[in-house]
Amino acid sequence: MSESTAILQAAAPLAVRSEHDLIGDRDIPVEAYWGVHTLRAVENFPITGQPLSTNTHLVTALAMVKQAAAQANQELGLLDAPRATAIIDACREIIAGKLHDQFVVDVIQGGAGTSSNMNANEVIANRALELMGHAKGEYQYLHPNDHVNLSQSTNDVYPTAVRVATIFGATSLVTAMEHLGAAFAAKAVEFRTVVKMGRTQLQDAVPMTLGQEFNAYAVTLGEDRARLAESTLLIHEINLGATAIGTELNAPLGYSALACTHLAAISGLKLETAFDLIEATADVGAFVHLSGVLKRVAVKLSKVCNDLRLLSSGPRAGLGEINLPAVQSGSSIMPGKVNPVIPEVVNQVAYEVIGNDVTITMAAESGQLQLNAFEPIIVHSLTKSMRHLEAACITLADKCIVGITAHEDKLRAQVENSIGLVTALTTQLGYAASTKIALEALSTGRGVAELVLEHGLLTAAQLDELLRPERLANLSE
Amino acid sequence: MSESTAILQAAAPLAVRSEHDLIGDRDIPVEAYWGVHTLRAVENFPITGQPLSTNTHLVTALAMVKQAAAQANQELGLLDAPRATAIIDACREIIAGKLHDQFVVDVIQGGAGTSSNMNANEVIANRALELMGHAKGEYQYLHPNDHVNLSQSTNDVYPTAVRVATIFGATSLVTAMEHLGAAFAAKAVEFRTVVKMGRTQLQDAVPMTLGQEFNAYAVTLGEDRARLAESTLLIHEINLGATAIGTELNAPLGYSALACTHLAAISGLKLETAFDLIEATADVGAFVHLSGVLKRVAVKLSKVCNDLRLLSSGPRAGLGEINLPAVQSGSSIMPGKVNPVIPEVVNQVAYEVIGNDVTITMAAESGQLQLNAFEPIIVHSLTKSMRHLEAACITLADKCIVGITAHEDKLRAQVENSIGLVTALTTQLGYAASTKIALEALSTGRGVAELVLEHGLLTAAQLDELLRPERLANLSE
Amino acid sequence: MSESTAILQAAAPLAVRSEHDLIGDRDIPVEAYWGVHTLRAVENFPITGQPLSTNTHLVTALAMVKQAAAQANQELGLLDAPRATAIIDACREIIAGKLHDQFVVDVIQGGAGTSSNMNANEVIANRALELMGHAKGEYQYLHPNDHVNLSQSTNDVYPTAVRVATIFGATSLVTAMEHLGAAFAAKAVEFRTVVKMGRTQLQDAVPMTLGQEFNAYAVTLGEDRARLAESTLLIHEINLGATAIGTELNAPLGYSALACTHLAAISGLKLETAFDLIEATADVGAFVHLSGVLKRVAVKLSKVCNDLRLLSSGPRAGLGEINLPAVQSGSSIMPGKVNPVIPEVVNQVAYEVIGNDVTITMAAESGQLQLNAFEPIIVHSLTKSMRHLEAACITLADKCIVGITAHEDKLRAQVENSIGLVTALTTQLGYAASTKIALEALSTGRGVAELVLEHGLLTAAQLDELLRPERLANLSE
Amino acid sequence: MSESTAILQAAAPLAVRSEHDLIGDRDIPVEAYWGVHTLRAVENFPITGQPLSTNTHLVTALAMVKQAAAQANQELGLLDAPRATAIIDACREIIAGKLHDQFVVDVIQGGAGTSSNMNANEVIANRALELMGHAKGEYQYLHPNDHVNLSQSTNDVYPTAVRVATIFGATSLVTAMEHLGAAFAAKAVEFRTVVKMGRTQLQDAVPMTLGQEFNAYAVTLGEDRARLAESTLLIHEINLGATAIGTELNAPLGYSALACTHLAAISGLKLETAFDLIEATADVGAFVHLSGVLKRVAVKLSKVCNDLRLLSSGPRAGLGEINLPAVQSGSSIMPGKVNPVIPEVVNQVAYEVIGNDVTITMAAESGQLQLNAFEPIIVHSLTKSMRHLEAACITLADKCIVGITAHEDKLRAQVENSIGLVTALTTQLGYAASTKIALEALSTGRGVAELVLEHGLLTAAQLDELLRPERLANLSE
Repeated sequence: MSESTAILQAAAPLAVRSEHDLIGDRDIPVEAYWGVHTLRAVENFPITGQPLSTNTHLVTALAMVKQAAAQANQELGLLDAPRATAIIDACREIIAGKLHDQFVVDVIQGGAGTSSNMNANEVIANRALELMGHAKGEYQYLHPNDHVNLSQSTNDVYPTAVRVATIFGATSLVTAMEHLGAAFAAKAVEFRTVVKMGRTQLQDAVPMTLGQEFNAYAVTLGEDRARLAESTLLIHEINLGATAIGTELNAPLGYSALACTHLAAISGLKLETAFDLIEATADVGAFVHLSGVLKRVAVKLSKVCNDLRLLSSGPRAGLGEINLPAVQSGSSIMPGKVNPVIPEVVNQVAYEVIGNDVTITMAAESGQLQLNAFEPIIVHSLTKSMRHLEAACITLADKCIVGITAHEDKLRAQVENSIGLVTALTTQLGYAASTKIALEALSTGRGVAELVLEHGLLTAAQLDELLRPERLANLSE
Repeated sequence: MSESTAILQAAAPLAVRSEHDLIGDRDIPVEAYWGVHTLRAVENFPITGQPLSTNTHLVTALAMVKQAAAQANQELGLLDAPRATAIIDACREIIAGKLHDQFVVDVIQGGAGTSSNMNANEVIANRALELMGHAKGEYQYLHPNDHVNLSQSTNDVYPTAVRVATIFGATSLVTAMEHLGAAFAAKAVEFRTVVKMGRTQLQDAVPMTLGQEFNAYAVTLGEDRARLAESTLLIHEINLGATAIGTELNAPLGYSALACTHLAAISGLKLETAFDLIEATADVGAFVHLSGVLKRVAVKLSKVCNDLRLLSSGPRAGLGEINLPAVQSGSSIMPGKVNPVIPEVVNQVAYEVIGNDVTITMAAESGQLQLNAFEPIIVHSLTKSMRHLEAACITLADKCIVGITAHEDKLRAQVENSIGLVTALTTQLGYAASTKIALEALSTGRGVAELVLEHGLLTAAQLDELLRPERLANLSE
Repeated sequence: MSESTAILQAAAPLAVRSEHDLIGDRDIPVEAYWGVHTLRAVENFPITGQPLSTNTHLVTALAMVKQAAAQANQELGLLDAPRATAIIDACREIIAGKLHDQFVVDVIQGGAGTSSNMNANEVIANRALELMGHAKGEYQYLHPNDHVNLSQSTNDVYPTAVRVATIFGATSLVTAMEHLGAAFAAKAVEFRTVVKMGRTQLQDAVPMTLGQEFNAYAVTLGEDRARLAESTLLIHEINLGATAIGTELNAPLGYSALACTHLAAISGLKLETAFDLIEATADVGAFVHLSGVLKRVAVKLSKVCNDLRLLSSGPRAGLGEINLPAVQSGSSIMPGKVNPVIPEVVNQVAYEVIGNDVTITMAAESGQLQLNAFEPIIVHSLTKSMRHLEAACITLADKCIVGITAHEDKLRAQVENSIGLVTALTTQLGYAASTKIALEALSTGRGVAELVLEHGLLTAAQLDELLRPERLANLSE
Repeated sequence: MSESTAILQAAAPLAVRSEHDLIGDRDIPVEAYWGVHTLRAVENFPITGQPLSTNTHLVTALAMVKQAAAQANQELGLLDAPRATAIIDACREIIAGKLHDQFVVDVIQGGAGTSSNMNANEVIANRALELMGHAKGEYQYLHPNDHVNLSQSTNDVYPTAVRVATIFGATSLVTAMEHLGAAFAAKAVEFRTVVKMGRTQLQDAVPMTLGQEFNAYAVTLGEDRARLAESTLLIHEINLGATAIGTELNAPLGYSALACTHLAAISGLKLETAFDLIEATADVGAFVHLSGVLKRVAVKLSKVCNDLRLLSSGPRAGLGEINLPAVQSGSSIMPGKVNPVIPEVVNQVAYEVIGNDVTITMAAESGQLQLNAFEPIIVHSLTKSMRHLEAACITLADKCIVGITAHEDKLRAQVENSIGLVTALTTQLGYAASTKIALEALSTGRGVAELVLEHGLLTAAQLDELLRPERLANLSE
């Protein structure tokens, strides 16, 4: 039994009020702040059992939009002071975290967000009614559509709230990525002089330092963070005031600018009204873009975690270059086995984010004419991607990266024993002669330096300078 | 705060017992059936806030596997009767729906399912201890690893439980698809003689009946159901007894066959032990396959819902062929607007399933050597796909299909007025002459029959017979 | 300049004939077998520059369908003997590999395959005209639509031809997979007694043999091959005779059965007419299914290649378990470096196939009402997936697998030195005591056996038997 | 037989020279500019049959990089004037379009681009040898590795060339998008006063103009173009000078800056050397990003084409709002049928691009440690996406958009007859009363205005002003 259904069932034996919509009359539990439109939606969309209340940012953002609209309506003389004040106060309560449990519509819903908007309209109307001294359901005093939704349509309210909520989520993710980047950067400093073999195509290549490797992780995450921040900027363009299809029908002159200004103030975000409201109402390009960037973040994080799992493979029959901190027993049958469980969970989040990107792509492509009716699944997928990436970044930093140690002696020995050293000699010996040395080393198991000396190709002093690991790794000393 | 974290925090002030793992000692709330390994996992994987208990089928399946293992161990003399009986009874309680709230590990977890397996081992051990008259945590009498996990490894227990759970989920989905198919089939009968224009590439083509159109939906879903049932058969092959990597290390001779037989009896499923346990332990091909079939189901369902939305477009400026039942108000701003919200929610589930398929694909491709460590995200994604598709099928049938009505008069008029009728004359007139008639009809707005008569190409009687809609639609009379 | 455009331009200065369609008159090079409809299509779809002729199977299959239709039409008295004979002979020439260069329409095309069908109609008509002693373009004697396309529509011809072509391609791929499977199986025999450490989650687990590992690859590919063969069976159901939308309009009674019988004979395939032609005409489920199976094949192949690259990593700082044959120099800068280029190219083919699956999914989902207009991209994507997988399988077998050698001594030493051996002792020592030994081995760098003896937990004789690698690997001796 | 294989076979009987690599000696046709490394690669990668020469931008870019390197090497005193001059002149010939047929390696190749780089090294070396008066193959005078590849590695040359080629491709696509955007903008002006019903969720909503609809298409494509241009900027950061893994081994001090400056001058692009060459050498984030943006473009284009197909559906049983120009006959069986073949081909390109994005994602995620070995499939996929989108944009503009006409009378009548008009009355009547009017209109088939008058809710004058279509559409007059 889903949480949403539970709410309905638990309500059954209690006192009710009657509400009406175009289909007919329905009983609503007297203590419910939601009304008949919400009830229909809960019954119509029993998909995930996960109510809208689980998306805190979106519930908050809906209330912010409603408050901004009420302020604009009041200033334009469309809403009287008592009603405006009641609506604004009800919104403030929701922004403060109250009444979220009244947002009971399923996160996956038909209707292009209408049910989310109506859920908000009803909760706010009923709370405002209470604040005005009326009973819930006495819509003759304050109506969910005529007053709370005044000058609005789902088609501008919902996309706007989704954008505000998405900015909150993305900003939070940026912070988590900074935290992870800092963890990598600290390790880069710690491992600055730890020489090791670099690898290309999983084959030994030429020397580098472990610090360089970890620094590259910090840099690559930093680039992703910058891209994410840029992409978030695109979402600051809203269509509030567009109403049904962007023609601003039923919204008075000046409303869109005023509502945007208020919403910016309430949310603390630098929001702007889109230049072409018709385009903005149908378009979900900014979400496709953001999802593409989140996918990029996921790809990079996954690559880094693949590397960490590979570098820590062993303990005896693997690469064994680094040690990840043990955070739990690794096996129910193999005693003492410790597994890279933190990178593994990050990999899985990455795969989820990449799948979500395909979901979002399909939903975006399916928009038709003046609206994309599939924004709820876009929002749901984006929200999961951002939240899980955020959790993954923090977990990776705190449970794994900070505790990584290096097997320094083994790493240096591998460099000194490597065939890749021969690369450093090609500027002296040429590619053909160097290849011969490499093949001889490979077939005999002997060292490159030893063979070069034996063949009299270079002096020991020349070799020492050419093959100094720190020089090879381009390590500024 | 996630549900899982809440459990831990609420527990903080209460009485505790101490447990130990390779990292050290930890306090566990005395009333918790889970132990230190579960605690570590809860702390390590704060990703979704959605605990394992939300996957009822998987919790049940884990208990079934543990019961089957205990029975096999007892019969092979590895487990004494008191312990075996206690374990079996504890498993039966879980299978009966009890103790599910003790499965608190996050659904997205590292460790290849080890934490899910250990969560099960600990809950079963502690409940068995109670049944034996001991206190929870007195593992000297019955140990999560040495007794509950005896002859087992996560790497055979977890994939086996996942398969059992997946079969339960897929079977349930097949039933829902039958329900939906029946709804379409009933409408096919109802609309058997409703003539309408068929369309290809969104252009008017040639006549058919609405019954034929709905029957095709029933047929196409029936094919998908058959494919899903076939695909589910592949999942009946399990690797129980494989232990760590498929070499059956630490499982006695005869164990795998015996455990499989018991699990088949307990679950009521025709399970079989895989021929090559090493291959079976690393392989997740059957899940990739199933997900591919679920994606096929999603693609078809989405196509059908796209058609329903298109055919019901209007009411006045759309195709307006059929009417979907109104299940809620369509708009917060446009009074009287009714939207195809049920097909829309089904579309969104389809997009989610298609995205999940990519997630599963990536997780499957990332398996390495003797194991795929990413089975948790595969399971999580498959479970969502199956559940949401099931809900979508039932909702679509009950809230939409059964209430569809047709605008018969409009449909017949469109056939009689169509240019596509000319196609039926090409066998008499040839392609070139027919094209001329069609172009003339198009440019003048006149009817095909009228023009054919005017040009003296056919007699009225010939035309009547050639253009009879029922004949054109190949409707057996 | 694309190949298709080149054909048009080269034709410009030569002698021409005039042809006519609903848009107007156009000059056609006299030597061209294609006509005005093909010319329009070449001009309309300048997308890839890759002409239909590059899809040999599809060109052949189109000719087979046209031949089958002509035979059925002749037997049903719709087509006289001279025309039927000429059409059939023209088709046979194409099936024999002639005239393929006349199929010049781009592989990515709008129109649901109409242009491919018309290209075939025109080439066959003009060749048949020649065979009848007429000039190309003298359609009054034999018309592309009225005679070659008689009783047909693109909407049944094209999907049918696509199915026949797909069966050819899939069958060829199955053979290539058998070849690859045999190569793995041969190596499994060769490496039967080569003991090595198995790994889970990239961490040392318990012993196995390299033969078991390669045998698992053979088994897993064998399963995929079986799934592919099953999936191909679904494609044997055709809609020939359905004409425009499945109502069989303009196809005489008995035509569909007769045409199917002839096509089966011509192609050598066990084709069957679909039960519901309306459903079959709109449905592309079998292609989605096949693509899902191809994706499964790709996922497995990629996983196997990932393993091969990992196992051959080194030569000195990697796992270094096996040696892949050198097939080219690995680096333009690092002398002697040899890279796993063959597995790498297979990985890339796998990624392409997985991407193609998404393309096919989207195209399938976008079908509307009585037809899927996007079958050309489905076919194009499927064809690429099958061909490239086939090439990848053969290349992998011949250029890589057959030449793999093992570093046997290193592998055995790793087993003897491993901590994972302790797992084999848990049945004697219990999980807790075994964990202590493992941790001591890990921290001291000492061996498991040595520590067990030192602590007096087992005798040397007991240990020898418990830790015998062949026993651990479950190797039947 | 693939084109590449054909080259080899045709060469067989001719005169040959012998070349040597680490595997052994091979005969090379004397007229071939490529050498033994290229030959190995052609034999190793018989995947697509599509040679590197088909990627003109990439061949050109490789030559530009080689020229820049030679100039830098000469200035740094590493390369003498005769050799430098010969190399530079050979590169200039390739940049001018010569010798492209010598780039015969398959576009899908293992080895991280090494074979593409070696193909370039060999062709340039042999052409340079000729220019110096030597025979091809006389590498003692000028060596592919020691001179043409001097100070370079595949791992910096190839990614750099790929970036240059990608910028060329993306720039070309931007131009095509401008062309398409201009076509939409022109139609927006033409249709400025054509009033029509807007639709949300495929249901009649409120009035707008066709000009607004087409303007939104122009705006949305303009946004995508801006995003694409931004994304292309990220690709201007190159890693030339990084050599094998980013440590600049074997590249002299100052080389990377100098080579970048020369390459910028040669290519005309504002290239910059990456700040962290180790990160830049392993990272393919910019390609993932670009592909994400291309996917966004594809999603939008596909949505627009879906709309065009929907708006032009009919001619009699569809929406029939606009008319797409007929560019070919639509059907082989249905005379006079005209299909939206141009939007259909654009849809298919979009699906391909979306699939390519998944391919690129997987290839990117699979990079390991200091390199991504799968860049060839990334490049191949990106190139296809950009080229096909470019062709699609131009085709859509020239073959479809410019010829679109509107059915103005029908559109205005639909507005006047619509129920959606009631929305404009809610500010006067309230949501509840308006809903009643809407339902009455729907059930009786009567007009909104008529019912409002009948119920005495508004005067005729009020209605006239409220319902004026231009006012409803927010059309500035």
